[in-house]
Amino acid sequence: MDFNISSPKREILTELDYKINDLSKPKGSLGRLESLAKQIGWIQQTLTPTLKHPQNIIFAADHGIVEEGVSQSPQEVTRQVINNFLNGGQGINFLAKQHGFEIKIVDAGINYDLPPLKGVIDRKIRKSTRNYLYESALTSSEVEKALNYGAEITDMCVNEGSNILSFGEMGIGNTSTSSMWMTLLTGIPLDKCVGVGSGLDSEGVKHKKEVLKKALDNYQGTNDVMQVITYFGGLEMVMSVGAMIRAAQKGVIILVDGFIMTNCMLAASKISPNILDYAIFGHQGDEAGHKLVIDYLGVKPLLHLDMRLGEGSGALCAYPIVDSAVRMINEMNTFSNAHITKYF
Amino acid sequence: MDFNISSPKREILTELDYKINDLSKPKGSLGRLESLAKQIGWIQQTLTPTLKHPQNIIFAADHGIVEEGVSQSPQEVTRQVINNFLNGGQGINFLAKQHGFEIKIVDAGINYDLPPLKGVIDRKIRKSTRNYLYESALTSSEVEKALNYGAEITDMCVNEGSNILSFGEMGIGNTSTSSMWMTLLTGIPLDKCVGVGSGLDSEGVKHKKEVLKKALDNYQGTNDVMQVITYFGGLEMVMSVGAMIRAAQKGVIILVDGFIMTNCMLAASKISPNILDYAIFGHQGDEAGHKLVIDYLGVKPLLHLDMRLGEGSGALCAYPIVDSAVRMINEMNTFSNAHITKYF
Repeated sequence: MDFNISSPKREILTELDYKINDLSKPKGSLGRLESLAKQIGWIQQTLTPTLKHPQNIIFAADHGIVEEGVSQSPQEVTRQVINNFLNGGQGINFLAKQHGFEIKIVDAGINYDLPPLKGVIDRKIRKSTRNYLYESALTSSEVEKALNYGAEITDMCVNEGSNILSFGEMGIGNTSTSSMWMTLLTGIPLDKCVGVGSGLDSEGVKHKKEVLKKALDNYQGTNDVMQVITYFGGLEMVMSVGAMIRAAQKGVIILVDGFIMTNCMLAASKISPNILDYAIFGHQGDEAGHKLVIDYLGVKPLLHLDMRLGEGSGALCAYPIVDSAVRMINEMNTFSNAHITKYF
Repeated sequence: MDFNISSPKREILTELDYKINDLSKPKGSLGRLESLAKQIGWIQQTLTPTLKHPQNIIFAADHGIVEEGVSQSPQEVTRQVINNFLNGGQGINFLAKQHGFEIKIVDAGINYDLPPLKGVIDRKIRKSTRNYLYESALTSSEVEKALNYGAEITDMCVNEGSNILSFGEMGIGNTSTSSMWMTLLTGIPLDKCVGVGSGLDSEGVKHKKEVLKKALDNYQGTNDVMQVITYFGGLEMVMSVGAMIRAAQKGVIILVDGFIMTNCMLAASKISPNILDYAIFGHQGDEAGHKLVIDYLGVKPLLHLDMRLGEGSGALCAYPIVDSAVRMINEMNTFSNAHITKYF
C-alpha cells in the first residue's frame, strides 16, 4: 500500500483560533475542548466540523508467543470473546451503544476455524502468528496483505460515511508483542515496556519478561519498523497499522485506544510521521510502559481511568469529550452575538 | 436546616464486588468504571443502579470584594451571562443538551434587579454580598436562609424525579471567595490557594493576593466553617452547600464541578463529613489550589481537561463516564452466562 500522508493545510488555523477565542467564555477556559476543536477543524478544513457515523473496528488474532506462557489467559479466550461481542455482552458493547458507535469485528488471524458469523469480517491471514521466540512471526507478504486488508476495512467505513474511527483489538498475548514493538521502535529498555497484561501476578510478569528478553536476544534484525512488525507480528496489530494509515490518508479522525493501539500508532508514525496530526489519544491506561510510549510520542491522552480492557474501550470512553469539542465550536454563542462584555 | 447525613449501609458492598468481578473482563480492567459502579450501587443500595433526570443547578450571585479589583471581569458579566444561559449559547448549554441535563438557574444574589425571567428561579437574598475586606459578607440569618433555599431547590429536583445532580455557579469574584474558604478550612497557606480565576495576568494575580491577604489579616473569626462561610460569603456558594447537604440526605448522587464547587463540598464536608460518600468529583481544573484541595479531601476527579469555566461544565463533561459505569454493571454479560473461560 501507499504510505504517503499529507499534513492538513495550515491556513485555516488562524481562523479557527479566532472563532474559538470569540466564543462567550474566558479565553482558554474550555481547555482541551478548545484544542480538540481546533485539531478537528484543521483535519476537516472547516470552521464547522462534524462527527459522522463513528465506528470501532476490533481486529482479533492470536499470537504464537502464548505457547511460552506469557499470558494468564488461554488462547481459546480470543475466539470465545467474539461470540460475546456478537451477543452484545462484552465491555465494548455497552460503550458502543451509549456513544452511538457501530462495531465491526475483523478476524485477522484467530487460531480457530470460526464458522461464518454474521458480524465478523473474515480477513484471516493465518491461524495465529508463529512463535517469535524461535522464528519470524510473519513473512513480508503476510505483512503486506495485513496492511492492505486494514486499509480496505477503513475504505469500507469511509464509504459508509464515517469520518471518525476508533481501532481496538482482541488477542491473547498482544501486550507481549506490543512490548517488543515498543522497545525496538523507541529504544526504551524492554524491562520498562512489559506489564501485567490482562492481569498477571508478579511471578507471571517475571516469566513474561524472561521470555521476551530471550526473544529480543534471538532477534537478528534492526529497529526498522517493517522488520520489527514482520518479525513480531501480530496480525491484528499490523492490520490496525494499515487501517490507521488509510484513515489519515482519507482525512478521517483516528481515536487511539490503550497500550496496544498506541504502539500501533507508534509504528504507523515511524512509517508515516504526519499520521499524528489525525490522531486523538483517548486513554492512558494502567499497563506499565503506556505512559512511556505516550511521552515518547509527545501526546496527551484525554482520559486516565485506570482501564486495561482493550477492545477500543478507552477510545470510546473519550468520544463524548471529542463530541463536546465539536458541539462547542458549532453551538456556543460569540461575545458579539451574546451582548456580553468581553471578559479577557 | 438539619445537617445530619447517614452513610449508606455497607452490607451491599460484598454483593456489589461479586457482581462487578463476575462481569466478562479481566478483574479490575475497567478501572474507575468499576469503582464508580460500586459507589453508585452503594448509594442507591442496589445491584442495578440507575441515573434519572440529571439536572445541573447554577447558582448565580455577586461578591462585594470585586470592588477591590480582584477580577478582570466587570460585575455586570454575572447578569449578562444569565441571558446567554437562557438563550442556550453559553458553555454549559451545549454540554447539557449533549448529556440530557436539565439546567436550573437560581438568582441567589445577583447585583441587579433582574426582570422576572422564565427559567430563572428567584431566591435573591440580597444584591451582592458585602465587601469582606472591611466587614462580614453575610449575616448569620442570611446564611441560614441561603442554606435553606439551597435545600429547597434540591427538594424540587428530587420531586421532579432526579437522582443525580450537578451544581455549578456563576459569580464574578467567586474564585477569590473560594480561596478564602480554602485557606481557612484546610490550613493551606493563602498564597497557594489563589489563582488566575477567569484569566488574570501576573500583575492581576499579585494584586488579588494582596487584597485577599489584607482581608485575611482583618478577619477576626476562627476557622469554624459557619463563621467562615458567613464572613466571606458568597450567596451562590452557601446556597450550593445547602443544596449538596440536602442531596446527600436524599440519597442523590452529587456531581462536583471545579475549584469553586470543590470548596463548597469542602465546607459541606466540614458540616457533615458523610457527604463525601455521595460525591463524585468530575474535573480537576487549571486553577492553582484546586489540586491541593482535592488532595486535602483525598478524592480523585474523573477528568483533567485544563478547564476553568465553571457553570458545572467540568461535572457535565464527566457525566458520560458515570453513565458508562451504570451501563457496565447493568448491561455486561457475566463469565458464566457468556461461556468464557474465566481469565484471571
